[in-house]
Amino acid sequence: MRSICGDIGGTHDDLAVVEDGEILLHQQRKTRRQHSFVNYLEDFIEEADDKGIGADRACFAAAGPVRDGVVNLTHTNLRVDREQIASSTDLTEVKVANDFTAFTDATQVVDESQIKHLQQGDSRDLDTVSVIGAGTGLGKGVLVGTENGHRHVESEGGHAPAPIRPRDGGLHSFIEDRTGRPPVQEDFVSGRGLKNIHDFLRQESFPNAEELSPEQISERKDRQDSCREAFDLFVSVYADLVRAFALETNPGKGVYIGGGVAARNPDEFGSRFVERFADAPEPRFERLLRGMPVRLVTDYKASLLGAEHILETH
Amino acid sequence: MRSICGDIGGTHDDLAVVEDGEILLHQQRKTRRQHSFVNYLEDFIEEADDKGIGADRACFAAAGPVRDGVVNLTHTNLRVDREQIASSTDLTEVKVANDFTAFTDATQVVDESQIKHLQQGDSRDLDTVSVIGAGTGLGKGVLVGTENGHRHVESEGGHAPAPIRPRDGGLHSFIEDRTGRPPVQEDFVSGRGLKNIHDFLRQESFPNAEELSPEQISERKDRQDSCREAFDLFVSVYADLVRAFALETNPGKGVYIGGGVAARNPDEFGSRFVERFADAPEPRFERLLRGMPVRLVTDYKASLLGAEHILETH
Repeated sequence: MRSICGDIGGTHDDLAVVEDGEILLHQQRKTRRQHSFVNYLEDFIEEADDKGIGADRACFAAAGPVRDGVVNLTHTNLRVDREQIASSTDLTEVKVANDFTAFTDATQVVDESQIKHLQQGDSRDLDTVSVIGAGTGLGKGVLVGTENGHRHVESEGGHAPAPIRPRDGGLHSFIEDRTGRPPVQEDFVSGRGLKNIHDFLRQESFPNAEELSPEQISERKDRQDSCREAFDLFVSVYADLVRAFALETNPGKGVYIGGGVAARNPDEFGSRFVERFADAPEPRFERLLRGMPVRLVTDYKASLLGAEHILETH
Repeated sequence: MRSICGDIGGTHDDLAVVEDGEILLHQQRKTRRQHSFVNYLEDFIEEADDKGIGADRACFAAAGPVRDGVVNLTHTNLRVDREQIASSTDLTEVKVANDFTAFTDATQVVDESQIKHLQQGDSRDLDTVSVIGAGTGLGKGVLVGTENGHRHVESEGGHAPAPIRPRDGGLHSFIEDRTGRPPVQEDFVSGRGLKNIHDFLRQESFPNAEELSPEQISERKDRQDSCREAFDLFVSVYADLVRAFALETNPGKGVYIGGGVAARNPDEFGSRFVERFADAPEPRFERLLRGMPVRLVTDYKASLLGAEHILETH
């Protein structure tokens, strides 16, 4: 059965026609400065119909908390509204989910070739998976297995205060001065987090480095010292937040790392990342952390497959 | 059906014979300096048999992560081992659970008279409950509803790094100097956390105050300034940690606060606590937090009922 699946993020809106985990048609636009999601969807439906691959059900994974079938996106003014979509289109079934809720479902269907095993660990009987991933923001979610499929625990943990180490206190103050409020986790680990870290290092150690976007920092990390250091610090704090969420949710089937930053830079998530992940303040928790599978999903379109999985199973 | 239920904590071991939510026999000993749980259990079973209220199944809720039916308690050397208990007793069914996993179950059966509603909120369709509670340590757990009863997400979040506010940085450094490692959440919010906070305030503002135990600080909080300030700061940081966990797990049915400290001092968890709970760094999350039911469980023996609930339903 064909489905229209969407991944409505802070930077891009992805729409696709998906059938049995295969993407038949895919379209993307920049999210910012867009005001109507429904118009974009209507155009996409028309194109799919023209190509003879129309669908009559849809699931949209959007970056924000879901309330009564509505997501007001956290990082833009866009609104994804189940009732509005249903009344504006001929779709007979419309679901709206949090983007990381969809990504938790994607962990169940993503192709093994798209998974990098960072730490083998040993799965336990408790059928729980936790996911975390930095893109425009920092998303998290938990999937709990039952006899009748899976249930979700949604998370807005990217907006919880950041449990960073005291030695990163200067960075903490830098971000607080910049934002005028106590930092939250995604002020450190997200696209803008990478920029915050680079700007902090420019102030501290690289006065001649110019201001760069997150994409530029990623691109130049192998040839410019300020970018290299920024990316290293970013990955260290990322590992701290993955460890914290792993302790908060103690997932028997391990942690999956998603999001655009890791998907585009998988080589940066190696042994240094894993060592930092397992470095618990209380040594007796190192065993628990080393026994936990840690996997990185390199498929940037995994959430689209997750959205299809939600339609298939919920 | 009668069950033997246990709540094996860092300070006390509680054993009970429970039938349909009613405690027929209850016994408690101090946990510290005990080396065998099974001997204690054997004596209790003998006493229950003598009284004609024996049981042939049991569930033990213990303060530590469960692995293959074994809990090595986090705060003592005690070990609770399903196989060992089964082979040393005539019990035909033995379960071992994390203590906060049992407390999550208790939220489903605890009597309304034992609940203080701190914030009404409005339950959402997502059938998730999060629990958090300070006693000897800081426990957490999540309960997810399904068509066939509930599933647990275990948590060791009390051992995750503490996301405290920068203005509490002096306390952070004080604890780091004392422990020789970066503080974790239960260094702030637990019995020893209350003592840490009082010791910090003695150093900062009350040089003449003597060193006190957590129990003494609680007892004297209405007549000694150092204790009053320590308890106020403790409750503020407690609210910060409840908010952080509420954001991490976004529970549709709200947050339950358990643990000995809150159960014994419910009046300290009033409007000031709720205001701090809802005070998110990013104002747009205040609505989510104010919409979340927050309840305090004053029944200190709730975990025993939760252990019975696990036997009834899993």
